[in-house]
Amino acid sequence: MTRLTVPADDLFGLHNLPYGVYSVPGREPRVGVRYGDYVVDLAVLLGDEETFGVSSLNPFMAQGRDRWIEVRAAITAMLTAAVPAQAVHALGSVTLHLPFEVADYVDFYACEHHAANLGRLFRPDNPDPLMPNWKHLPVGYHGRSASIVLSGTDIVRPSGQRKGPQDPVPVFGPSVRLDIEAELGFVVGVGNEMGEPIAVADAEDHIFGVVLFNDWSARDIQAWEYVPLGPNLGKSFASTISPWVVPLLALQDAKVDTPVQEPAVLPYLALDRPWGLDIDLEVVWNGQIVSRPPYAAMYWSPAQMLAHLTVNGAPMRTGDLFASGTISGPDKDQRGAFIELTWGGAEPVTVDGQQRTFLEDGDVIDLRATAPAAGGKRLGFGEARGRIVGTGRGMAGA
Amino acid sequence: MTRLTVPADDLFGLHNLPYGVYSVPGREPRVGVRYGDYVVDLAVLLGDEETFGVSSLNPFMAQGRDRWIEVRAAITAMLTAAVPAQAVHALGSVTLHLPFEVADYVDFYACEHHAANLGRLFRPDNPDPLMPNWKHLPVGYHGRSASIVLSGTDIVRPSGQRKGPQDPVPVFGPSVRLDIEAELGFVVGVGNEMGEPIAVADAEDHIFGVVLFNDWSARDIQAWEYVPLGPNLGKSFASTISPWVVPLLALQDAKVDTPVQEPAVLPYLALDRPWGLDIDLEVVWNGQIVSRPPYAAMYWSPAQMLAHLTVNGAPMRTGDLFASGTISGPDKDQRGAFIELTWGGAEPVTVDGQQRTFLEDGDVIDLRATAPAAGGKRLGFGEARGRIVGTGRGMAGA
Repeated sequence: MTRLTVPADDLFGLHNLPYGVYSVPGREPRVGVRYGDYVVDLAVLLGDEETFGVSSLNPFMAQGRDRWIEVRAAITAMLTAAVPAQAVHALGSVTLHLPFEVADYVDFYACEHHAANLGRLFRPDNPDPLMPNWKHLPVGYHGRSASIVLSGTDIVRPSGQRKGPQDPVPVFGPSVRLDIEAELGFVVGVGNEMGEPIAVADAEDHIFGVVLFNDWSARDIQAWEYVPLGPNLGKSFASTISPWVVPLLALQDAKVDTPVQEPAVLPYLALDRPWGLDIDLEVVWNGQIVSRPPYAAMYWSPAQMLAHLTVNGAPMRTGDLFASGTISGPDKDQRGAFIELTWGGAEPVTVDGQQRTFLEDGDVIDLRATAPAAGGKRLGFGEARGRIVGTGRGMAGA
Repeated sequence: MTRLTVPADDLFGLHNLPYGVYSVPGREPRVGVRYGDYVVDLAVLLGDEETFGVSSLNPFMAQGRDRWIEVRAAITAMLTAAVPAQAVHALGSVTLHLPFEVADYVDFYACEHHAANLGRLFRPDNPDPLMPNWKHLPVGYHGRSASIVLSGTDIVRPSGQRKGPQDPVPVFGPSVRLDIEAELGFVVGVGNEMGEPIAVADAEDHIFGVVLFNDWSARDIQAWEYVPLGPNLGKSFASTISPWVVPLLALQDAKVDTPVQEPAVLPYLALDRPWGLDIDLEVVWNGQIVSRPPYAAMYWSPAQMLAHLTVNGAPMRTGDLFASGTISGPDKDQRGAFIELTWGGAEPVTVDGQQRTFLEDGDVIDLRATAPAAGGKRLGFGEARGRIVGTGRGMAGA
């Protein structure tokens, strides 16, 4: 047995304990918990090979909230005392993997600042920048689960059709308006039976945890394709998640009231106090922080998004992922997409001393975040990183 | 060994041989092939328990086209000679199951007649009923894989928000404009690596087979929610597929040229002769045929849909399903959705002597289809059936 020590102000102390999937050379991936700069093997720690000696969090997540509480308590107790030495790995010595098998994936549009900014950009003559439905329901659409990749995966610049206002016919080629969307992703641990909606008050029995989410977006492809059925190829090439799933149980001290919702929402979306999360993000472009989106500003709450997704009886499963949509605050340096941050490309930002609008090959984007946690501490989400690489050979001559 | 005899004009003769998943009491589901009114166990027939003694077609589909050809030839040879008696079950004695695990699901909008009819209904003042992008790319959107159910599954009427032109605010309740969409679904056997598009000429190396697909649609929910990100809850409650996957290899005699595509498509969508499929559908409402949609009229081909889906590098997987969108012919009695068939509800059709527009509780819809096959025969798709049941208890008080 060994005793692990982690600094009191570490973002990955006992107040966090996020889950992930790791491997060491010669062994299959297994579930681990991050503690400081250690990865602790949960099957060894808890003696439960069936749940944790596997390559995804899905079996554990499916066991439900009582079990999530029990496991978190057991981990905390053992890390406070002593742990088997063979359970412990240095973070730098392991390979991290996608932490769960993504079932269905939905992306929302839950930020009023973002939706209003895009409305002003694309419909400048419209007195109301929001669509009529926006304050009545959390607008969202399904995306491609297979396109969700782990932090660190290179992002191949997508090719596709685009048609600018000056183009008489659509042209084909690599996207020239490649963007990010800084979001959070909510991971569903326990789903529902088809035909049995999840009540907004019960969301915490279903949402297991939270990851950082970068919804890479090809704005030129999206603008041409999206009428009338929504985004498809402008989004489906890749989205990046962070490797550590921060349990919702660790975010109890980060709960805040959502902004006032006016007009009042329909009863199936109503709580006495709809809770959001006070999570501060950073968007880092080639090492330079260019934006600090505040999740607390989000209009629609995670519980409302989940209740809405299932109110028609649609089934959710273990591993479902729903993302918040771009997080933007009221200030310019809080915008979570470059199309907003640079106002459609008209107002470049300075990165590495250069005027920049959209992504160029070789650019590296990191999302990072922290949130308040128990005992006045802060917890971290790690990072969601991606580097843009040129269109691969598969695109040649297309 | 036993010799099976099937009538020469049977829709499920040797020229068809569709694959499915069946079970008998006390045994786990396994892969079978339908021959006439028999289900023949493929693991027993071919001595390959690993591929076929399992509850989905995914392992077999993943083995690729050469193997699909080889297995089809082996089945044909054995059924022509004699088969082990223990491999044979009467169709009526087995339970059928969802034949494959659905990975990602995309629904297209590939029928010009359908898209133009909806344009005329919803944008009557617009001189062109088609959107500007429609003839340049197959428009599509992702849907909820978990909502895809087997023929025979009851469909719970979905609840949700709607807002008619006379409603000052949205109202909540069971959909009052519940509709069908008669479609075909294409099942992907072999996917692609992220970043490596599938060429339009290579689609037959990837598409394993075809099912009937009923994309149940709540038009009132859809109309209120779909701007600007497309359909979500108006579709995500359920889609029904037929239990037998007809191999694309059985549909070689059903290939026809698509309608002329003008303007010319971009090179990544171009083939010398884009092929469609001459498949005749029937929409059956409470036992009465109300429409006969012709798949041969579809503008975009299955190969073009697949090439488009991946041209941005998006990864497809074994079990991916893409559906065609509503199939409608040029004539009124060839329309594959009731919103078109009844012109938005203004022109009811007579069913059981009653004037009908949208679906009522207790209604049963069957989709059926046949297509030309080798030797001047026709092959069948079986049916995709669903019955509408009232909103369940889960919806109460929502």
